Amino acid sequence: MSPPSAIDIDVEAVTDTQGITIPDPLQLPLRANEIFGRRKKTEKSQWGVAAPSSSAKFKADVGSGKPMARRWDDYLSAEAVRRQGNSLKQAAKYLGKPGLISLGGGLPSSEYFPFDSLSFVAPSVPKFSEAETKTDGVTVTAGKHDLQEEKGIFDISTAFNYGQGTGSAQLLRWITEHTELVHHPPYQDWLCTMTVGSTSALDMVLRLMTEPGDYILSEEYTFATAVETASPMGVKVFGVPMDAEGLLPEKMDEILSNWTSATTPSGARKPHLLYTVPSGQNPTGATQGAQRRRDIYTVCQKHNIYILEDEPYYFLQMQPYTGADAPDVPPPKTHEEFLTSLVPSLLSMDVDGRVMRMDSFSKVISPGSRVGWITASEQIVEKYRMHADVSTQGPSGMSQLILFKLLDEHWGHGGFLDWLVHIRMEYTRRRNVILSACETHLPRSIVSWQPPMAGMFHWLRIDYTQHPSYPSKTIPEIEEEIFLRVIDHGALVMRGSWFYANADDRHDTLFFRATYAAAPFERITEAIRRFGEAVRESFGISEGLEEEGREKKKLKV
Amino acid sequence: MSPPSAIDIDVEAVTDTQGITIPDPLQLPLRANEIFGRRKKTEKSQWGVAAPSSSAKFKADVGSGKPMARRWDDYLSAEAVRRQGNSLKQAAKYLGKPGLISLGGGLPSSEYFPFDSLSFVAPSVPKFSEAETKTDGVTVTAGKHDLQEEKGIFDISTAFNYGQGTGSAQLLRWITEHTELVHHPPYQDWLCTMTVGSTSALDMVLRLMTEPGDYILSEEYTFATAVETASPMGVKVFGVPMDAEGLLPEKMDEILSNWTSATTPSGARKPHLLYTVPSGQNPTGATQGAQRRRDIYTVCQKHNIYILEDEPYYFLQMQPYTGADAPDVPPPKTHEEFLTSLVPSLLSMDVDGRVMRMDSFSKVISPGSRVGWITASEQIVEKYRMHADVSTQGPSGMSQLILFKLLDEHWGHGGFLDWLVHIRMEYTRRRNVILSACETHLPRSIVSWQPPMAGMFHWLRIDYTQHPSYPSKTIPEIEEEIFLRVIDHGALVMRGSWFYANADDRHDTLFFRATYAAAPFERITEAIRRFGEAVRESFGISEGLEEEGREKKKLKV
Repeated sequence: MSPPSAIDIDVEAVTDTQGITIPDPLQLPLRANEIFGRRKKTEKSQWGVAAPSSSAKFKADVGSGKPMARRWDDYLSAEAVRRQGNSLKQAAKYLGKPGLISLGGGLPSSEYFPFDSLSFVAPSVPKFSEAETKTDGVTVTAGKHDLQEEKGIFDISTAFNYGQGTGSAQLLRWITEHTELVHHPPYQDWLCTMTVGSTSALDMVLRLMTEPGDYILSEEYTFATAVETASPMGVKVFGVPMDAEGLLPEKMDEILSNWTSATTPSGARKPHLLYTVPSGQNPTGATQGAQRRRDIYTVCQKHNIYILEDEPYYFLQMQPYTGADAPDVPPPKTHEEFLTSLVPSLLSMDVDGRVMRMDSFSKVISPGSRVGWITASEQIVEKYRMHADVSTQGPSGMSQLILFKLLDEHWGHGGFLDWLVHIRMEYTRRRNVILSACETHLPRSIVSWQPPMAGMFHWLRIDYTQHPSYPSKTIPEIEEEIFLRVIDHGALVMRGSWFYANADDRHDTLFFRATYAAAPFERITEAIRRFGEAVRESFGISEGLEEEGREKKKLKV
Repeated sequence: MSPPSAIDIDVEAVTDTQGITIPDPLQLPLRANEIFGRRKKTEKSQWGVAAPSSSAKFKADVGSGKPMARRWDDYLSAEAVRRQGNSLKQAAKYLGKPGLISLGGGLPSSEYFPFDSLSFVAPSVPKFSEAETKTDGVTVTAGKHDLQEEKGIFDISTAFNYGQGTGSAQLLRWITEHTELVHHPPYQDWLCTMTVGSTSALDMVLRLMTEPGDYILSEEYTFATAVETASPMGVKVFGVPMDAEGLLPEKMDEILSNWTSATTPSGARKPHLLYTVPSGQNPTGATQGAQRRRDIYTVCQKHNIYILEDEPYYFLQMQPYTGADAPDVPPPKTHEEFLTSLVPSLLSMDVDGRVMRMDSFSKVISPGSRVGWITASEQIVEKYRMHADVSTQGPSGMSQLILFKLLDEHWGHGGFLDWLVHIRMEYTRRRNVILSACETHLPRSIVSWQPPMAGMFHWLRIDYTQHPSYPSKTIPEIEEEIFLRVIDHGALVMRGSWFYANADDRHDTLFFRATYAAAPFERITEAIRRFGEAVRESFGISEGLEEEGREKKKLKV
């Protein structure tokens, strides 16, 4: 249960490597897998079929001395207010009676699950590459009746049956511990509950906290699916201006301070929700620094805004970019060094319980698991869970069993952190490939960018004012012309306008989004070369002319 | 790809075994696994990561000559009307261009899925028992890159990545074929799309077709979760009286004919949705016969009601009950005999496209898969899928891969039908155990029942008029008293009042629900014995007195 860790832990190495405040070392578990050693004693019955569970049971820090979350009752929708618990669960309280035979719950017998065992091959720490997994991978197996046979705490007969809206106690324990290890939420009554992915979590929280006609705030360019989730509910997204570090808190303050229902076109009430992707934001790739996050949180306190912190890319934070020819920064040497290298989350600053953080295994294990979780105050988590019980239910038990076997039994917390460092270094390489390709192949007088510090996206700004058809052609027309020309040249990038928080607003920027997450390295480089070719063609410049342009620009600076 | 089938097919044996109209034999595939032989030629690209797919591609009968579904636009909610497709999918149409390099979609590379292969042990046909699976089960394996290596059409790199709201093309093909094999929907433009379970499907279709303040119709006693799904949306359930065959169409006609907003307490508009569980209804165990279903459909046509046919227990239809001492009815001998023994579905009668059928793997494979599907007209399925794309997404890819390997590659359609016959015989045994226990241990002067023909539930009617405290105690008080006394005696059954469609209505019946689905046989018998003991105690009768009572009652008849 305590697999060896690739990264030897060196307590002395806990240093402030990126100018970020380090959490009090006493709160930092010294060895991630020591979490297993201090787990509370468990009883077999707490792992049974559809056994109720709560994060509260699994927190090491009970939070005494920390404040309780504020109440958010005023922000609950009519739907959420009407939502009550499941009546049949009234029967559950009798199930503990010794000797009781239940003909109550309509759960099928596991006799009729046509599976005897489930196995997968996974990398052993630290041999994480695909090739090493093929040669040195370990077979991890779950039996059908491991719990009954005392071979383990999670098995096919349990995971493949019905579960709770929270997800299984087995995986929820690991998730709670991981959340505590990484974020140490600074209030008392936080809980985690599983989701069937953050897309579903957003759908559900909007139904929990908005009414038709509401506006929510978000970055000016935002995750298109978020807008399309909100829009059918009659909820609009108001875009807050951004810079290279993402959302601008002073602009947000300005918008909220000046908001009156009278001056808003639709007469909407003042927003009470912020949807933000703090790390490697989609589509801009922007990452809010620690101070930026603190400033955003302060503005949210001022206007009593509830924050939806969507963090699929949190662990895709990369090594600092040192430039095309400079030596790479060596990887973090310890778990502590890795954890302190991460920009602290809004959750980690959340003294008010005003953050619902959405986490996901999609970018760090597999999107197909459809397993994620939220962390928020008990009052919000309970309403969320009650909705899950009568809609999505818990995530797939098949997925939960696979994740539990991998994360808890096989890797442990330490092994997962080692895996995250592996992913970090891989994404760093990918990011460096696209940056190097851009430096080589793009006309810098027309296209500009910031090196992404996290996530999957590179955001390319086009100086449309230099386009020969500007201003006779509109920005959207120029965007479309370039987009189609890039396709003609054999590459596909996304149009920035597809990501407007509110497409009806006036916009005076032109961007394309390119991802370096998936294509093989040489194909990334080739696609960027084609993109550069298409842009030059569109702007009517030859490679030579453009070089001159770049020189001129440099002189100006 | 065509596993042997346990049940040899005997075309001559296609006879009307239960007085049910047999579909035209020409429409019945003679051998279930022949479906594989007539599959359309496929291309590798149609199975790729997040490849779009539609049931329409997989139907054998293109439906020419069949009517198109009616339009349901008038029934769509404001939310559904506002719902549009995903804007980023605009980019997908360019992906087919030869040689194109996409830096478009933000999908992670499968390099970073820490799995090399996935295996499970499943029973081989016809050795379906747990013990046989242990000794003779077959190991089924999916590799990481089977598609690329041309070893199969579904693999870890595809299934574990993002998918579509429809679910994967691979499993959707099997589901579509299965639906066609069993139901032959009699209109042209039907489609299937996957769900994360029928609970979620109901949540989503209510958002698609209701507004706050609406009533929907259902059985008088209904699935409690359905009521709790609707209620927070401000949607109430109006209970239609039932008999042993479930919902009474003439009562439904009467309710609808007399409905005016003025006479309804809340001024609600006339209902346009019926939620019904036709087979083994929860909690009553009632199964609508073929004629009953036709009559319900006719009333729905008359009042233009859209039908939500929730059928988790469809394949838990059992053998006829022959009584405690009579010989059992032998199992169906052929796939055809099995299929024709099933009461035809509302979907199979649906000439108007007015049915959304909800199917689920929960009761026949595993609830933990969180995979189900709906079948409905294209216009409804498309709106559903668009919602899924921005909420639940498709079901877990891990679950989909396991189900595909089991159902398509390992068992095939024929093997699955064989498995269903196995399940049918197992539930028949369980049902017979509880009926035999009831006959032996319950006071028949007080408790009466009908043998369930499908599902998991036995519904026990209590003649409260004979209770010593009636009428000084109310029916709910007597129900509670018995419920708690049964627990004192060491058994748990569910209170009927927990299943009222509308708890505010006046009710003059008293029932308990007992399930025979899960407990071992001897425990079912013992629990019923305890229930009988508690009821006798509550009604103040000894076993002897009750016997006398029974004799008296018999004389009266």
